[in-house]
Amino acid sequence: MGGGESAPPEDCAAAYRLGQLIAEEGWVLLNGGRPAGIMEASAKGAKDRGGLTIGILPGNSARHASKYIDIPVVTGMGDARNVINVLTSDAVVALPGKGGTISEVALALKNGKKVVLLNFDPGKIFETYRESGLLRNAGSPEEAVKIIRNEFCSGDRGGRPAEVVKK
Amino acid sequence: MGGGESAPPEDCAAAYRLGQLIAEEGWVLLNGGRPAGIMEASAKGAKDRGGLTIGILPGNSARHASKYIDIPVVTGMGDARNVINVLTSDAVVALPGKGGTISEVALALKNGKKVVLLNFDPGKIFETYRESGLLRNAGSPEEAVKIIRNEFCSGDRGGRPAEVVKK
Amino acid sequence: MGGGESAPPEDCAAAYRLGQLIAEEGWVLLNGGRPAGIMEASAKGAKDRGGLTIGILPGNSARHASKYIDIPVVTGMGDARNVINVLTSDAVVALPGKGGTISEVALALKNGKKVVLLNFDPGKIFETYRESGLLRNAGSPEEAVKIIRNEFCSGDRGGRPAEVVKK
Amino acid sequence: MGGGESAPPEDCAAAYRLGQLIAEEGWVLLNGGRPAGIMEASAKGAKDRGGLTIGILPGNSARHASKYIDIPVVTGMGDARNVINVLTSDAVVALPGKGGTISEVALALKNGKKVVLLNFDPGKIFETYRESGLLRNAGSPEEAVKIIRNEFCSGDRGGRPAEVVKK
Repeated sequence: MGGGESAPPEDCAAAYRLGQLIAEEGWVLLNGGRPAGIMEASAKGAKDRGGLTIGILPGNSARHASKYIDIPVVTGMGDARNVINVLTSDAVVALPGKGGTISEVALALKNGKKVVLLNFDPGKIFETYRESGLLRNAGSPEEAVKIIRNEFCSGDRGGRPAEVVKK
Repeated sequence: MGGGESAPPEDCAAAYRLGQLIAEEGWVLLNGGRPAGIMEASAKGAKDRGGLTIGILPGNSARHASKYIDIPVVTGMGDARNVINVLTSDAVVALPGKGGTISEVALALKNGKKVVLLNFDPGKIFETYRESGLLRNAGSPEEAVKIIRNEFCSGDRGGRPAEVVKK
Repeated sequence: MGGGESAPPEDCAAAYRLGQLIAEEGWVLLNGGRPAGIMEASAKGAKDRGGLTIGILPGNSARHASKYIDIPVVTGMGDARNVINVLTSDAVVALPGKGGTISEVALALKNGKKVVLLNFDPGKIFETYRESGLLRNAGSPEEAVKIIRNEFCSGDRGGRPAEVVKK
Repeated sequence: MGGGESAPPEDCAAAYRLGQLIAEEGWVLLNGGRPAGIMEASAKGAKDRGGLTIGILPGNSARHASKYIDIPVVTGMGDARNVINVLTSDAVVALPGKGGTISEVALALKNGKKVVLLNFDPGKIFETYRESGLLRNAGSPEEAVKIIRNEFCSGDRGGRPAEVVKK
């Protein structure tokens, strides 16, 4: 998760690298699916490494998806799709963003999802969740992936067959 | 789309066969994702032929997905997820069902989606949509797939790369 | 519930009368809130008799509500708001409509809500619900209100204080 | 908006007073509708001054609404209803809360809604919105209402007839 049209180049570069690493781990990349900012960059990174990408779109048509999204999920629900983004994810990595990104971090933590903040310092607002072990900081895409692999993964893949997650 | 726990064996058999054919066409199968009735049977059919399956879940956890669903999309939105089912689909095949299935057929047609009714006779209620070419009947899974392939497909795959739809 | 822009004058006249009667009973009128067809007519009827009107809007702004709606609930969720329409209602009256209206009748019945079809014959599709007592036909607004008052009302008002429902 | 079961007595007292003041202004009070914390307290305050209260419920039944809610809007959509809370409001007052409340502040600001933080210091996270004039702090319910009345009100009531907002 992260900024859209307003995301600066350095954040997009980190998102691109994160997408590459997610694909290399054999994980599925999910984001908000639009052709902008962190979404576009992370999806491109995953595709460049042969990963599978899912985009949860706010609008009414798959035509508005990034071209790097394999599976556009069309919700027609606007910002309410942010809830789907986080409920569907096993772990959330948040790069810097504004209201939309902050809402996703907040909704993820509220629902007990593990969150890594990548180069994103929201101040003290989420500190109560840090104490419960749900929230971690990372200074690089590599560190974000390492935290998810080594500390967040519980061996529990929900209903997902291993061959998809580790395809 | 089609009945859940109440679906009779003959409908589940048709759904299983439909899932097989969808996978053989190289299409992605999407349904409501629960481990019951038409959803479970069609997903199993697709997996038995190596297809990719997506389930749009009404509840809050991927744990409640059918084991034949590769990608559980967790909405936590109850019946509101029916809208996502139809907006995300390029074409909808509806087997017999009750309120949930009828709502999906209605929402699909309202949104201009093409619908094939497979062994499902809802009476005259959707006749205005039949005249506009959105609604067709099929007497077998083979006929349903043939209608989609030969009459509904426009060559337009939304934002989806061909290698995923025709993976 | 009922048709929007496509609703014919006779249906709008029935909706207007229904709105009047709902207000006279002291009930709150809820509909989809847009300034068109059955929605506009029923809200106008209720306001002309001093009733309270709620509109569950599909769009992002209260500016798009009918001027006869007192309380515009802004969902930004498109057709997913149809679920809210029926879950929030104690009873649903459906006039003739297309996909949107049919989806509301279907979702209402699926969720155990009582439905009166007013001058609306959808054929046999909802017959299983008729047998369970959830579905009734009415030939006039007066008959629709009488069915709700005498046969559907259980004395149970959910969480609503009597002074609001019978304000 | 604000905390649920976890809200401390001093925040509930401020919410109760805020509800009183909202009713005295002739405004409609809207919150998440559950019988807990800031929701229950603010609704009780408004009812004690004869106000009108709306609750946007996450669950499937009006039975789970606070008894101080006049109009329970039943969404069945879980946290996705937070979007409705903020889109439906003309202005948002947020008392201290956790993920749910933070998501509401974030979604409100993203959608251009004016927000007053009442005794709630989320740190620097929303500072970019403060500069654009959408975000203000208040140290008392009286100050929050004064900011809304004197600085936020534009004379534009959306589609709402004045007699309802100023009933």
